Amino acid sequence: MRLVQFHRHGDGGGGIRVGVEQGEGLGVVDLKAFDPSMPSTVRELLELGDKGLECAQRALVSGQCVVERSDIHLLSPVLAPEKVVCVGMNYRDHCLEQNAPIPKEPIIFSKFPSAITGPYDDITLPSESQEVDWEVELAFVIGRRGKHIKEEDALSYVAGFTVANDVSARDWQMKRNGKQWLLGKTFDSFCPLGPALVTTDAVKDPHNLGIRCLVNGETVQSSNTDQMIFKTAALVAWVSKFVTLTPGDVFLTGTPPGVGVFRKPPIFLKKGDMVECQIDQLGSIINKVV
Amino acid sequence: MRLVQFHRHGDGGGGIRVGVEQGEGLGVVDLKAFDPSMPSTVRELLELGDKGLECAQRALVSGQCVVERSDIHLLSPVLAPEKVVCVGMNYRDHCLEQNAPIPKEPIIFSKFPSAITGPYDDITLPSESQEVDWEVELAFVIGRRGKHIKEEDALSYVAGFTVANDVSARDWQMKRNGKQWLLGKTFDSFCPLGPALVTTDAVKDPHNLGIRCLVNGETVQSSNTDQMIFKTAALVAWVSKFVTLTPGDVFLTGTPPGVGVFRKPPIFLKKGDMVECQIDQLGSIINKVV
Repeated sequence: MRLVQFHRHGDGGGGIRVGVEQGEGLGVVDLKAFDPSMPSTVRELLELGDKGLECAQRALVSGQCVVERSDIHLLSPVLAPEKVVCVGMNYRDHCLEQNAPIPKEPIIFSKFPSAITGPYDDITLPSESQEVDWEVELAFVIGRRGKHIKEEDALSYVAGFTVANDVSARDWQMKRNGKQWLLGKTFDSFCPLGPALVTTDAVKDPHNLGIRCLVNGETVQSSNTDQMIFKTAALVAWVSKFVTLTPGDVFLTGTPPGVGVFRKPPIFLKKGDMVECQIDQLGSIINKVV
Repeated sequence: MRLVQFHRHGDGGGGIRVGVEQGEGLGVVDLKAFDPSMPSTVRELLELGDKGLECAQRALVSGQCVVERSDIHLLSPVLAPEKVVCVGMNYRDHCLEQNAPIPKEPIIFSKFPSAITGPYDDITLPSESQEVDWEVELAFVIGRRGKHIKEEDALSYVAGFTVANDVSARDWQMKRNGKQWLLGKTFDSFCPLGPALVTTDAVKDPHNLGIRCLVNGETVQSSNTDQMIFKTAALVAWVSKFVTLTPGDVFLTGTPPGVGVFRKPPIFLKKGDMVECQIDQLGSIINKVV
């Protein structure tokens, strides 16, 4: 299934709804219209466990309560998670690009949830940075609560996968803030997500997917998720040694080579640029830089 | 006012309630019992703005709906904030202690909200760390939404102050995770907060308060918040350049000297230790290490 969150146009900006896409870019079944007892956010749906997903499946099969794409504005498939967990230096080819050693343990940092924005919403260039860069990433979302999760059980804690852009202000990430990456990673709008949360059962092999970033139509990143050093199960197991994971928690799993900062000369985003992040089977997010 | 959150004993662990303390350690007015239209969490109360605080004030003055301390378990005065913003190296005397230069800009890092625990709850020593340390800190909580807040307006965005212990696994903070501090700072239970959110109007001068940490009754940190390099208003203004602040966001403003890692030889917390963090006018939190 492809779970989404949306507003209806003319809804005054209020009223988040959960939807199930009939296919990428196709009509969306309005879950709460199908069953008024269902919640209004994907996070709450995940908190219901199998009951929520089974209802979403029935709604999809019913073919009822379909809303046309032209009538809705798609939001990030998850909003207000407790955590946005990010992984640094997690593609072999991205480490080679910067002559960095392959990490022996995952490098974990974070964004604040306030950075999340929708799959087609704008990325706001802050006046505080001159070095804003793209990073296409495979994201996954936690489906149930857990701590000290074993790697062999870890995939059962993952609700599904989506596409992320880990937008990064390199000046703040690399040169300021005592080299703590947080500030450079967490400006408002620096975490576009979407278009849908594709449930784990609907993704053939999340670690064999083409992953690409295009800026103004030109391919700047092109790799495969098979280059990931620490894969989904390993990351769930690792992070759950430190913290309790909870439904809705978002993981961004690192980026392949081709980011702007390591180009010669470096290239950064400017107003008017269109950034598209694509992952096979999951879809595409397109964000304008304003 | 001193806002708290509590469970009633025998409530099965469910049912967070907002309370107003009649004084530190005294009876607590149950806000929802006084006015059933009031919310069940301090974060939601803050989202109501003046209306919520005025109702809390009426409840306190009424002297009605008072619950005895022996009937309740006090929780952190804020739970599930969108952000826990932390400041590093923010006391002049703490910089001197480690021969570090005084920062020219605040150094901002974070904890996940899952690290928050109550004022008298246990700190769980993780088996993954051998170097768990204390850090008493002045914390403040955001009361209204804002971005690009000017320093001269900043205090009007602060709902109040409380006491925090920024518990830190030094091995993970300083030697592992690519020197990103997050993991060492965010183990579950590594952010005791409380006992009350003391509203801004009730704190005479938040930057002239004695601040102390005691381990097993022995004073290990003793300073004054006048040693803070970046004070409350400056921190609100700085962080709001990057992110939208929202009611309930918690800031931990840095620790004075006397932490375990810089002692010769270093001292770390062990099972059975009692850690008490005290700030004048705000109160005291006491957490057992288990």
